[in-house]
Amino acid sequence: MKFTIKKNIILEALSNAVRAISTKITIPVLNGILFNLTELGLEIQASDSELTIKTTIDNKDIINIEQCGSAVLQSRCLIDIIRKMPNDIINFELTENNNIKIYSQINEYIIECYNILEYPNINLEKSENIIKIKSKLIKEMINQTSYAMSTQEVRPLLTGLNLKINGDILECTGTDSYRLAKKVVKLDEPIYNSINIVIPGKSVNELVNILKEDGDVEINLFKNKVLFIYDNILFQTSLLNGAYPDTSNYIPKDFSYMINLNLKEFYSAIDRASTIMLGKDKNIIKMQIDNKKMTLYGSSSDSKCKEELSIDCNNKEKLEISYSSKYMLDALKVLDSENIILLINGDDKPIIINSVSDDTIIELILPIKTY
Amino acid sequence: MKFTIKKNIILEALSNAVRAISTKITIPVLNGILFNLTELGLEIQASDSELTIKTTIDNKDIINIEQCGSAVLQSRCLIDIIRKMPNDIINFELTENNNIKIYSQINEYIIECYNILEYPNINLEKSENIIKIKSKLIKEMINQTSYAMSTQEVRPLLTGLNLKINGDILECTGTDSYRLAKKVVKLDEPIYNSINIVIPGKSVNELVNILKEDGDVEINLFKNKVLFIYDNILFQTSLLNGAYPDTSNYIPKDFSYMINLNLKEFYSAIDRASTIMLGKDKNIIKMQIDNKKMTLYGSSSDSKCKEELSIDCNNKEKLEISYSSKYMLDALKVLDSENIILLINGDDKPIIINSVSDDTIIELILPIKTY
Repeated sequence: MKFTIKKNIILEALSNAVRAISTKITIPVLNGILFNLTELGLEIQASDSELTIKTTIDNKDIINIEQCGSAVLQSRCLIDIIRKMPNDIINFELTENNNIKIYSQINEYIIECYNILEYPNINLEKSENIIKIKSKLIKEMINQTSYAMSTQEVRPLLTGLNLKINGDILECTGTDSYRLAKKVVKLDEPIYNSINIVIPGKSVNELVNILKEDGDVEINLFKNKVLFIYDNILFQTSLLNGAYPDTSNYIPKDFSYMINLNLKEFYSAIDRASTIMLGKDKNIIKMQIDNKKMTLYGSSSDSKCKEELSIDCNNKEKLEISYSSKYMLDALKVLDSENIILLINGDDKPIIINSVSDDTIIELILPIKTY
Repeated sequence: MKFTIKKNIILEALSNAVRAISTKITIPVLNGILFNLTELGLEIQASDSELTIKTTIDNKDIINIEQCGSAVLQSRCLIDIIRKMPNDIINFELTENNNIKIYSQINEYIIECYNILEYPNINLEKSENIIKIKSKLIKEMINQTSYAMSTQEVRPLLTGLNLKINGDILECTGTDSYRLAKKVVKLDEPIYNSINIVIPGKSVNELVNILKEDGDVEINLFKNKVLFIYDNILFQTSLLNGAYPDTSNYIPKDFSYMINLNLKEFYSAIDRASTIMLGKDKNIIKMQIDNKKMTLYGSSSDSKCKEELSIDCNNKEKLEISYSSKYMLDALKVLDSENIILLINGDDKPIIINSVSDDTIIELILPIKTY
């Protein structure tokens, strides 16, 4: 393998592929990045065995292909070395003793490669079951719902994001059982096969990093895995097995309290109140609704605070409800609207958060019972 | 104590004073910030008993002084709360039970204060022995030499910065005994009392953060402490006791190798070579000088590299010398010159680094003997 390539081109491909590498990997060769150079171009692939990312650099974007071949390069300092190379044009050469030589006129770096025979063979073939969705939409869906995924392995399914398509309705849900974020979108065209999959959290977070605003993503569905194709990137992840909880009945239809208030003012008030509270999980906000006035109370062992906001509320009866300030801030962060609506049925019932300007996203937080 | 003040004014004073607070403090009240409001203005003071910083806000910069008084406020979330307050104008009021109330029209924060009787009385009087130096010069001196101070408590004196004035010569030295950085400057006017003090590392680092480019610093000298006065800030630090090593004979007069080379190229080459080396303290660069050519070699267990640079050297005889890449990068970082000069007498002798455009700074690195 011997080729010459522009710095920014190989850097972009590498920085995408390297996202698949995990620090938890126990198979040494999976710390490596597979380079496969053919007359067609350079394939760069990395994997943690659950998530595999492969990018292809077209031969027209390679300055010179002198000799085809393959190698598994160490990922540890590869990107760093390439980024710091003094020239825009960089040479790669696999030497006889399986070292990669990265060089320019004034310097050379020689690094041992992994044994390519140890690299697992990962099938990245396309499916017959393909769905096309706008990249921008997938990004938005993930950005608005993934924060609610669980980080606890107690219920493994909840550490993933649920993606459902039924006809022309696409639904994306994250929940850790204390809160929930759901995005429901109408597709331009209906899909004939209905879908209900759970994508692992790590894969969700990396997918959103790889997608850009423009273009379509081709979703290739299999029984236990899904392959996203975007641009020249193949992004394949295993799925979480099991039946994701049916969250459709979590959100009531009717509410006794409908509170309309300014998003920015509400966020700032809770953010301020959080500063006096120490323990991350004990940031309890007590919220009082009294006609046109909302009052938020926070406290810690040596301090307390009070924040007042003007609101519109359909119910004149006083209400007092408590919740985690962190959960509320997380939910408010993903909304982009001047005003929001809080829907509440009582101090022991979930709080529903709706955006006034965007009805595709709905969020839920369970209250905390205080005595 | 009750007053009203603009957010940015109290924030600036607080962010300066709070630098004195240390996480290692064992006296609880020193986690607090002393507020003292008189008709003249508001004094804000913090201390870790070694370093004390006091700033004064003039009464003309306070919107309303309703009642004078004093309190020791908790520093923990004070700056955060004030920064996040919704309005530019903030009210402070000490309540009867020694709580501070920070409030605007729409919110209030009530936080317990420390017992003011427990706050130590710290003398911040001026000395009769005063020296004036440009703030910009002190900043530059510290920025160019403080990196070389030791972080090891084995030789406590070396954890500080040595400041010497003799006549009109001001000398500032940092060393950890493996490397040294010295700045020597001629003052506009001679000083009649000679000075030789060692300022603790933490104080040095905070002083440079407080000083701006303009104006003069008044240095008030005492036997065991020094008080810097800058603008409306009093910055008083204890000194390290003992005789700082006389470093004047560390730097030879004559050299067998005088190497002139481009600073940026040299820095980049060492920076690249460092990427393949893992252990922070074992980043050894082997440097070969051969007439007009410098070659740098780096290696780790599974990789090696070579960097070549064009140089000007007065000595045609080959030289090979090794050193820590981290130490060399630290030394090069503080220089601002197109070219530098390396002065060397042999592979077991110190490497001297000079800036071509600035003869006030001289740096030294001990070589590492490799076999």
